Amino acid sequence: MNERLKKVTTWLEEENIDGAFFTSTENVFYLSGFYTDPHERLLGLLASKKGDAILILPKMEATQARDAGWEAEMLSYEDHENPWEILGQKISELELQGAQEVAIEKEVLTYERAENLSEIFEKASFVDGSKKMNELRLIKEEKEIEILRKAAQLADYGVEVGVKALKEGVTEMDVVATIEYELKRKGIREMSFSTLVLFGEKSGQPHGNPGNRTLKKGDFVLFDLGVVLDGYCSDITRTVVYQSVSDKQREIYDTVLRANNASLKESRPGTRIGDLDIVARDTIERAGYGEYFTHRIGHGLGISVHEFPSMSKNNDGALKEGMVYTIEPGIYLSDLGGVRIEDDVLVTKDGYETLTKFPKELLVIS
Amino acid sequence: MNERLKKVTTWLEEENIDGAFFTSTENVFYLSGFYTDPHERLLGLLASKKGDAILILPKMEATQARDAGWEAEMLSYEDHENPWEILGQKISELELQGAQEVAIEKEVLTYERAENLSEIFEKASFVDGSKKMNELRLIKEEKEIEILRKAAQLADYGVEVGVKALKEGVTEMDVVATIEYELKRKGIREMSFSTLVLFGEKSGQPHGNPGNRTLKKGDFVLFDLGVVLDGYCSDITRTVVYQSVSDKQREIYDTVLRANNASLKESRPGTRIGDLDIVARDTIERAGYGEYFTHRIGHGLGISVHEFPSMSKNNDGALKEGMVYTIEPGIYLSDLGGVRIEDDVLVTKDGYETLTKFPKELLVIS
Repeated sequence: MNERLKKVTTWLEEENIDGAFFTSTENVFYLSGFYTDPHERLLGLLASKKGDAILILPKMEATQARDAGWEAEMLSYEDHENPWEILGQKISELELQGAQEVAIEKEVLTYERAENLSEIFEKASFVDGSKKMNELRLIKEEKEIEILRKAAQLADYGVEVGVKALKEGVTEMDVVATIEYELKRKGIREMSFSTLVLFGEKSGQPHGNPGNRTLKKGDFVLFDLGVVLDGYCSDITRTVVYQSVSDKQREIYDTVLRANNASLKESRPGTRIGDLDIVARDTIERAGYGEYFTHRIGHGLGISVHEFPSMSKNNDGALKEGMVYTIEPGIYLSDLGGVRIEDDVLVTKDGYETLTKFPKELLVIS
Repeated sequence: MNERLKKVTTWLEEENIDGAFFTSTENVFYLSGFYTDPHERLLGLLASKKGDAILILPKMEATQARDAGWEAEMLSYEDHENPWEILGQKISELELQGAQEVAIEKEVLTYERAENLSEIFEKASFVDGSKKMNELRLIKEEKEIEILRKAAQLADYGVEVGVKALKEGVTEMDVVATIEYELKRKGIREMSFSTLVLFGEKSGQPHGNPGNRTLKKGDFVLFDLGVVLDGYCSDITRTVVYQSVSDKQREIYDTVLRANNASLKESRPGTRIGDLDIVARDTIERAGYGEYFTHRIGHGLGISVHEFPSMSKNNDGALKEGMVYTIEPGIYLSDLGGVRIEDDVLVTKDGYETLTKFPKELLVIS
C-alpha cells in the first residue's frame, strides 16, 4: 500500500471509521496514481480501516489503471452492468456491509450516489472525508512541487507566446488559438481552464469570454491561463497594454502590482491566510479602487486548479510550508478595462517562492 | 417567464412540489440562458410552484447573466459572503421555508450542498428533479438542432484538419494542436472534451491519451473530438489508415462501419433504444470481434457531451423525434490498434439525419 493510502487507513483507524469511498478524479488520482475523468460512469476507491483498498472503474480503463501503477485489487464493469451491484457484492465479501461509519467526499459525492451507497451500507452514517483529503493534499510533497514548478513555467511560456502574438487587428480568439497551439505542441493535453485573452474594455469583466474583439492601440490585454501537467495545474494572469498607456491605466496597474507584492510579502509559515487578502485589499482601497476588487485574493492550487483553501479575508487558517496557492488581486473598470496580476506561490521554510516568473513590470507592447 | 421555466413551474404544480433548486451549469443554462462554470462557487436557480424564479450567483458574474437575457430576480454574493445565508434569507421572505417537498438534481447536487439546503428547508424532503430536466432536454427544439448541426459541421472540419496534418514522423499531440488551433481560430472557445488523436497500437485503447507517438506507415489514426458551440456539444470519431492497409485492418474497419450503419438504419421514432446497441453488437459478434467492442453504442448529446439517455443494450426506452445522440461502435485490438466510427444522430419524423457528415469509407492517407 502506498504512503498516501496508508495515511487514509491510519486516519480511519484513529477515528474508528469503518471505511471510505472516494469518487472524485482528483482524490482517486492522489491515492491511486491513476488520473481519469470517467464522465458519468462510476470511478471509486474503497478503503477500509482493516487495510482493504479497491479501485472500481469502467472495464475499458482497467489497463490504464494498471499502467499508472495501481497494484491492489480492481473491480471493473461494462456499460450494461450496474457498478453498485458489483461494489455491493464485494463489500459483503469483505464483511463491510455492517459498517457504522463511512467517509465520503461530501463536497463531491452526488445525492444520488449517496443514496446508492446507503443501500449498500445499510447501517452506516456518512462522515466527511473531503476535509481529510483536502488536508492531505494541502502540503505538497517535493515531487508534487517539482511538477507544479514545471507547470508554472509552461504557464509563463503561454503568456510569452500570447504577448508575441499581439498585433493590430488580431482577435482575442486568434491569440488563444496561438497560445494553446504552442502549449499542445509541447505535449500539454489539457489547459487548467479555458484560456482567457481579453482586450480593452473586455478585460474589465473578471470572468469575461474571449471572442472576436480586435486589438487596438491603448487596449489593456489580460491573459489568464494555465496548463495541466502530469495531473497538476498552473494558473497565471498577466496584463499588458498595447502600444500606448494612459496615466489612469498606469495608476491602476501600479496599484494592482503593489497589492500583489503586499500579499507576497506576507507569504510565510504562520501568516493568517485571510491577511493575504486584507493587505492586498487595503492597498487597493487606499488608492480609491476598493469597490472594483470584487473577488478573493486567491485559492489553493494543485491537482485542482481551485482547491482548498479558499484565500478570502475571513479565512483564519495559517500558512504552512509546502502550501501552494494563487495571489491574484485585480481592479475592473467597465469602460477602461481591468488589470489582474496572478502568481502561483509556494510557501517555503521562511518565506515564499513564486513559481510563475513572467515579469510583472508594466509591458507596453510596441 | 420563459417557456422552459414555465414547464418546470407547471411540473411543480402538477406534482405538488413546493420548489426546485438547480445548480448544474447545464440546467441553469437551459432554464436561464446563462452559461457559466463557477467552479466551487455556488450557482443556483430557485423556482417555486407559485412562479418565483431567482438566480443566485457570484457578484462578478451578475452582469454577464443580465447580458445573457436573465430578466428575473438575481441574488449575488461576494467571496467573503455565505451564499447559503443569502439564499436562506430570500427563501424566508418568499415564505418557502416551510416547504414539504423540494426538487433537486440528485445526479448533480453534492451531499454537502444537500445538507446546506436541508438547513434552509427544515421540513422538506428532497425529490429528484434531474430526471425531469433530462426529459425536458431530451427533445431538442429547432433552434437547438440548428446549433447542434453547426457544432457537428465544426467537428467534421476538425477531422478534415487532422487528416491534412498527417505526415511521417508527426506526433499525436502535433495533430491535436493543429486541429484545436484551426477550430479556435473559428471562434470555438472550448472543445467538448480533450481531443483524441491516437496512432497505431494506441488507437486500441478506447480512452487512450495522445502523446509523443510518431506516425508510421500502416498505422490506424483515430480522431475523437467535438466542439462546444453556443453551449451545445458535438462528438465525432473517424478512423483512417496511413499509407498502407492490411487485410485484417480492412476487415475490422468494414465490420465497424457495418455496425454503425446497422444502428443508423434502426434510428427512427419508436425503436427500442437498447436495440441500437444490439444490432451493432450482433454485427460485430458475427464477425468474431464481440469481445473487443467493450462499451455501449452511444449516449445522448446536447448541452452535455454525455447526456441522457445512455444508449446501452438494456435501455427499454423508445426513440422519439427530436432526440440527438451518438452512434459509436468500435473494435479495439491491443496490438493492431482500434477502429471507432461515431456519428451524431438526430431522430426525424420518420427516420434520422446524421449531423456529422465526414465520409466513412476507409481513407488510406497517402
